[in-house]
Amino acid sequence: MIDQRALPGRLRFITCATVDDVCDAINTLAVRGAPALGATGAYGVALAARTLGNARSVRAAAKRIVATRPTAVNLAWGVGRAMHAFEHAGATGALAEAETIADEDVARNRALGAHGAELLGVGGTVLTHCNAGALACVGYGTALGVIRAAAERGKRPRVWVDETRPVLQGARLTAWELDRLGIDATLVADVAAASLMAAGEVDCVVVGADRIAANGDVANKVGTYGLAVLAHHHHVPFYVAAPTSTIDVRTPDGAAITVEERDPAEVTTFAGTRIAPLGMAVANPAFDVTPARLVAAIVTEAGIARRPYRRSLASHIRLAAAHSF
Amino acid sequence: MIDQRALPGRLRFITCATVDDVCDAINTLAVRGAPALGATGAYGVALAARTLGNARSVRAAAKRIVATRPTAVNLAWGVGRAMHAFEHAGATGALAEAETIADEDVARNRALGAHGAELLGVGGTVLTHCNAGALACVGYGTALGVIRAAAERGKRPRVWVDETRPVLQGARLTAWELDRLGIDATLVADVAAASLMAAGEVDCVVVGADRIAANGDVANKVGTYGLAVLAHHHHVPFYVAAPTSTIDVRTPDGAAITVEERDPAEVTTFAGTRIAPLGMAVANPAFDVTPARLVAAIVTEAGIARRPYRRSLASHIRLAAAHSF
Repeated sequence: MIDQRALPGRLRFITCATVDDVCDAINTLAVRGAPALGATGAYGVALAARTLGNARSVRAAAKRIVATRPTAVNLAWGVGRAMHAFEHAGATGALAEAETIADEDVARNRALGAHGAELLGVGGTVLTHCNAGALACVGYGTALGVIRAAAERGKRPRVWVDETRPVLQGARLTAWELDRLGIDATLVADVAAASLMAAGEVDCVVVGADRIAANGDVANKVGTYGLAVLAHHHHVPFYVAAPTSTIDVRTPDGAAITVEERDPAEVTTFAGTRIAPLGMAVANPAFDVTPARLVAAIVTEAGIARRPYRRSLASHIRLAAAHSF
Repeated sequence: MIDQRALPGRLRFITCATVDDVCDAINTLAVRGAPALGATGAYGVALAARTLGNARSVRAAAKRIVATRPTAVNLAWGVGRAMHAFEHAGATGALAEAETIADEDVARNRALGAHGAELLGVGGTVLTHCNAGALACVGYGTALGVIRAAAERGKRPRVWVDETRPVLQGARLTAWELDRLGIDATLVADVAAASLMAAGEVDCVVVGADRIAANGDVANKVGTYGLAVLAHHHHVPFYVAAPTSTIDVRTPDGAAITVEERDPAEVTTFAGTRIAPLGMAVANPAFDVTPARLVAAIVTEAGIARRPYRRSLASHIRLAAAHSF
């Protein structure tokens, strides 16, 4: 897989030969992005099934992989699908299921992008946060999938790229993807979003998601909730783009979502340089939760879901399951 | 003066021997913070008066100093006061005026802090953005002056420190100051402020200002406006702390304030490491404007100003001028 830590400086690939390698790659953000974590989790199970001696070890490995990151539900979903296949058809079944997930990911994202492109006007400006592009998936992207589908349809979107502190997925990954796609993009510090909206420079916000609760509350990269409040204040529509695998019907609402607290060093150091006094106390939540009432629409591979989300999201899950990708 | 670029790693001092040195120190943010720029501008004029041959050269130097940074009005104010003294009493007059400004700064900030401390509850949490501490002034601080005055009065404030991208004045300077003062402080990425407010973890926001228009609109470090909108949404009071020298009665409202656009490299590189693709387009406004209706109070050395600000700010200016500091 691409080592996302090395971008944008280097396009470097890494190979995971063991379950430890997989857990390390997830923990250190070599691979990140909810749909990419789904596929990685499934391949991790396939790897465990091939390299470990017995079913009990494979089940233990699956638990370890799921535990690496608690917020993105796709990881548990991918591991769960591959484990189901493993229990029924062994290592071969687990690998086949991982490959199905990977193949479907691109097809689902293309469908999602086609639906979402309808929401963007010609020559409109879109603000996005973090990276929900091809890098965050197996390919094509979710929020960036919407933007590139709009570009493919001649809509010439112009994108504001939030740098996305503390790990800078916007500056490092989204900027790199949009540059390669030839889509008009301008990088800004996260704090500039509010005045851009006040100046009428943002026609809509499109972000990905790490977990969508049954009621439509959305967990995504920290900063997303603030953008949703700002968008609401400025009457700018706020859209979420995610495959139905990100919808967790067993999570009733946002209050039930665990938000991962990450290493303070992500905040106190920058590109290897310490930027805060030694021993400084730090809070570093990796995600936040946006209440459904601030979300104008949730775009999935099944279409555009609107409020009330409990009903529309359940319908999207049924539609997506019935459709072959 | 302290070289603020070297903090928090090193406490280094620099000496300005020429007007060029002064302009460089301002341009490169070796000295920043509206009240500090006021004193620096006045000392810059005193230096010009002492080192340059004639009044015309001094006037040209004063113009060059004012032009270094367009948003903070204190710079023009400090230069203006020193030039007025120079025109009446020559180089000696200019230096005396600069020293008066420097001496008064600390006294005014202490008075401001005492007024502002009334707004903070015992054991309350305060979120601040950028650095409006002693470093941003000649001493004591404005927004941090309010916080330290509350601490001196036994109120045990707990402070959330926004790191303040792109130049990280919060992480580098405010965290350093609060650490030295022994005040409870926790550093967060700017994007974490919204979820902290949603969780009820922020009792008020206190920030400084670079220019306050006659109607109470406030120009301050980019990200301030977003915080004001978030505070409004979460019913958290949003306070501005600044000396009356920051109020510019000749600027009718925020629309008339020039917002400085700074070097894209502040966003695309950090400590010499590139964090965005080469050639990436960047928008890097250094400030934003918060409309008066989102500001719960403006604290000056004359007291606590409330809406309507046109009247209360004019009264503060009269009171401050009549009072000897």
